[in-house]
Amino acid sequence: MRALILLGEGFEDLEFFYPYFRLLEEGFEVDVASGSVGGVKGKHGYSFEVSKTYDDVDAADYDLLVLPGGQGPEKVRLNTTALGIVRQIWQGQITVASICHGIQILISANLVKGKHATCWPGVKDDLIAAGGIYEDRPVVIDEQLVTSREPFDLPAFCDGIFRALKINNNTH
Amino acid sequence: MRALILLGEGFEDLEFFYPYFRLLEEGFEVDVASGSVGGVKGKHGYSFEVSKTYDDVDAADYDLLVLPGGQGPEKVRLNTTALGIVRQIWQGQITVASICHGIQILISANLVKGKHATCWPGVKDDLIAAGGIYEDRPVVIDEQLVTSREPFDLPAFCDGIFRALKINNNTH
Repeated sequence: MRALILLGEGFEDLEFFYPYFRLLEEGFEVDVASGSVGGVKGKHGYSFEVSKTYDDVDAADYDLLVLPGGQGPEKVRLNTTALGIVRQIWQGQITVASICHGIQILISANLVKGKHATCWPGVKDDLIAAGGIYEDRPVVIDEQLVTSREPFDLPAFCDGIFRALKINNNTH
Repeated sequence: MRALILLGEGFEDLEFFYPYFRLLEEGFEVDVASGSVGGVKGKHGYSFEVSKTYDDVDAADYDLLVLPGGQGPEKVRLNTTALGIVRQIWQGQITVASICHGIQILISANLVKGKHATCWPGVKDDLIAAGGIYEDRPVVIDEQLVTSREPFDLPAFCDGIFRALKINNNTH
């Protein structure tokens, strides 16, 4: 199984590292991509050395896309290549998981309309305005879409990812 | 299954939160104890609300003890009640897991003599001086003792904990 995580400067540290480590623990190959290679810093000061740019990504390679929150998604959503990757993965019926502000990327990719989802309360009005059906729960699974609200939802978020993967995906 | 984590001010944030969330995801009941109740801050600024002091802990209740690293262990090792808890859990043949500077607590509790273990490189001389057999690997399992070096070992650390639990422990 192979997962992709899109990372922008100011990402929520736990929301990146928990799924990243968790997927490695489960035996996944995990690629992390950003606008440029090199160190990307989280809002709590952790740094992660990214080795792939969005241009290096072949969206067809993945069984799972994970979008951490924090301030990173406001960088990622401005990059049209990144949004193209997200749309292509989505159209392949692949599992897409966002936590907290990660939903901002899915809003900009026009993918939330009619979907049940959750997110950080501060951006729920944007989810609703984009046509999403907001729910205030630790994890919401709507077919290929898995969403959570905040760092303390991380155990439910990862459990939800593994449950969704069992239902949705083919493996690479 | 029930786990105990001992937390001191300045703990390494990922080394606490990853095992904490991971054990919750696995269905464990997880208690976190410190010198006093209330917010305990990690070195990267995350805060965790602790509801148990060391005096509130009954060491006989647990199937697993986890000792995160960072600057926290230098606080925990000064507390004789905390060291008593660690020794009592150890004597019950319960799985004890330390990562990074967490080993400092086991050194002060006089538990590393003759044991294969690993830790943050900056304190390996103290592990060796206390009679431990230092190994430079992501996870070292020596009967009831599971040890790792640093945050990027966290997937191996948790995998090691679950493997050790299968071999060592009775359940509560």
